[in-house]
Amino acid sequence: MEEKLKQRLSSIQPIKEEFLCRAQDRLNKLTKPLGSLGQMEEIAKRYVAIVENLSPKVDIKIIYTFAGDHGVVAEGVSAYPKEVTPQMVYNFLRRGAGINVLARHVGAEVVVVDIGVDHEFQPVEGLMIRKVARGTKNIARGPAMSREQALHALFVGLEMADYAREQNANLVGTGDMGIGNTTPSSAILATLTGLPVSQVTHRGTGIDDATLEQKIRTIEKAIACNQPDPKDPLDVLAKVGGLEIAGIAGLIIGCAAHRVPVVVDGFISTAGAMIAVSLNPEIKGYLFASHQSVEVGHRIMWEYVGQKPILNLSLRLGEGTGAALAMSIIEAAVKILNEMATFTAAGVSQAK
Amino acid sequence: MEEKLKQRLSSIQPIKEEFLCRAQDRLNKLTKPLGSLGQMEEIAKRYVAIVENLSPKVDIKIIYTFAGDHGVVAEGVSAYPKEVTPQMVYNFLRRGAGINVLARHVGAEVVVVDIGVDHEFQPVEGLMIRKVARGTKNIARGPAMSREQALHALFVGLEMADYAREQNANLVGTGDMGIGNTTPSSAILATLTGLPVSQVTHRGTGIDDATLEQKIRTIEKAIACNQPDPKDPLDVLAKVGGLEIAGIAGLIIGCAAHRVPVVVDGFISTAGAMIAVSLNPEIKGYLFASHQSVEVGHRIMWEYVGQKPILNLSLRLGEGTGAALAMSIIEAAVKILNEMATFTAAGVSQAK
Repeated sequence: MEEKLKQRLSSIQPIKEEFLCRAQDRLNKLTKPLGSLGQMEEIAKRYVAIVENLSPKVDIKIIYTFAGDHGVVAEGVSAYPKEVTPQMVYNFLRRGAGINVLARHVGAEVVVVDIGVDHEFQPVEGLMIRKVARGTKNIARGPAMSREQALHALFVGLEMADYAREQNANLVGTGDMGIGNTTPSSAILATLTGLPVSQVTHRGTGIDDATLEQKIRTIEKAIACNQPDPKDPLDVLAKVGGLEIAGIAGLIIGCAAHRVPVVVDGFISTAGAMIAVSLNPEIKGYLFASHQSVEVGHRIMWEYVGQKPILNLSLRLGEGTGAALAMSIIEAAVKILNEMATFTAAGVSQAK
Repeated sequence: MEEKLKQRLSSIQPIKEEFLCRAQDRLNKLTKPLGSLGQMEEIAKRYVAIVENLSPKVDIKIIYTFAGDHGVVAEGVSAYPKEVTPQMVYNFLRRGAGINVLARHVGAEVVVVDIGVDHEFQPVEGLMIRKVARGTKNIARGPAMSREQALHALFVGLEMADYAREQNANLVGTGDMGIGNTTPSSAILATLTGLPVSQVTHRGTGIDDATLEQKIRTIEKAIACNQPDPKDPLDVLAKVGGLEIAGIAGLIIGCAAHRVPVVVDGFISTAGAMIAVSLNPEIKGYLFASHQSVEVGHRIMWEYVGQKPILNLSLRLGEGTGAALAMSIIEAAVKILNEMATFTAAGVSQAK
């Protein structure tokens, strides 16, 4: 299985400079001062380079919201009880959650993936049941999962990327649901960067000072007891990660392999992106950074992933909500490239 | 005419705290951690307070792009020749410009208002011919326009607000087109804040260092020779402003009077907003700040206007492009309020 992952990773090519240049040439001919659409132009160029098409369409958008539980919740690191994970999955399926509203607004489909919820769901439309385990183990006392389970969860993500490809999706978003999951996300961030836990750990769903202290101590304990190897991203993922984080990492790897642009959501999704880009740095070129969340460590994550956030709206909800909002901006950027008139066609004089 | 403006200004009421509180109550019941949608929640609350409706709809969106010419172009302050103003108006009317693409993307109508272009247009759909003059005079040598002309241009904006109201528009965007118009915008900013011209003047459509120097000297000259009175916003508008800036200010005043939320675009539009809020500070509550542009003085303008930008995409195109993009975020924020399930309805447990 690890061999198969390596094959998939090695199939990922750097995005091509040639397409960035050709897209910039096109942008420079449009009726606007050079570079005046700023980050929109950067987005359009990179979209073109990923799909290797100068007139791409963004019409089929899918957001995968991976749901999983976390044994570490037993340490009292979250403001919400664990049963909220399955309750929110039901909310997603009834289309009443934030992600449903925002995905509908931007014309994206939401696919919920049960990759590790501690609850048995009946099959229903919109839900992919791919349970690897009924939640992770408590990372404060041992590894979250085995290396095999981590690989299994990564392959669930890869499968979703294959599914997106089959659906001709041209923009994929990541999302998460899992009470307690900012804890493993901060643990991954601290391990991969070597930064102190206290510097990369924040309030998640809104914990108080005492709980934040407890969360920091718990993550320190998790790293001390598991000794995840920062040079081995799979080891980090298995020992201090989460099943939904692994699924997100797999989705990102699969999309990069298929040259499908991926919009990475918030703190938890970006932890998944860190695992993916640490397995193959070329993946960075395929990612769009949806937004800058209020989690203190998120800025450091984006630096690691090498992308600049599109939005900065003080969001901290997850689910894929930031990815949904950013999808609309990315689609707009691509439309600029396709639909704006050139100076020549419009008979507009150029700069002196 | 000035008396009539005063009446309209004095009809503007502060937005009601009561509606902000009721909207926050509703947001707190939705299935998400408290406050986790950050600035989206602030937007939704203020939208509710402006329209005084807890379940508002954002379905009819109009962007008014005011076009005017500037005598100061004779001083060599812009990278583009003056004929680009009418050329771009034709581009708007053929729907090939940036604003057309982005307005279409967010489902907004674009209305182009010829408030002062130095060119005779034939009547055509999508164009309002309300020419006050064929461009302003050169502010480096005297006032841009008379006080009567400034009032006339403000009333064109008020008329557009009336029209928006008749169309049942529930979100209005501002936009501008006018070669040279960052020059009067910086002049207004410097006059109203008392800041040095060099600190609030930037590259507009992309001028080089020598032209920037010339632009700064020109604005200094304009302020020295006209002596606009910062305590009299109409005097500032007439002496160092522009016709499209006056139109935008009038639109903003009219929308506030009708309790129609207005999204203010970039640097030029925000100069118009500064004039409006200096005439009545209660107008601040009715405005949404679309984006933070790369023009150095824009941050200071938003501070003056008292609103936090929704987007920060390094845009500097104008036309209403930033307003269009922000409209989609505002609409999404209102949908959150209307469409998300409550904890009770969804059977989701609340925080401990």
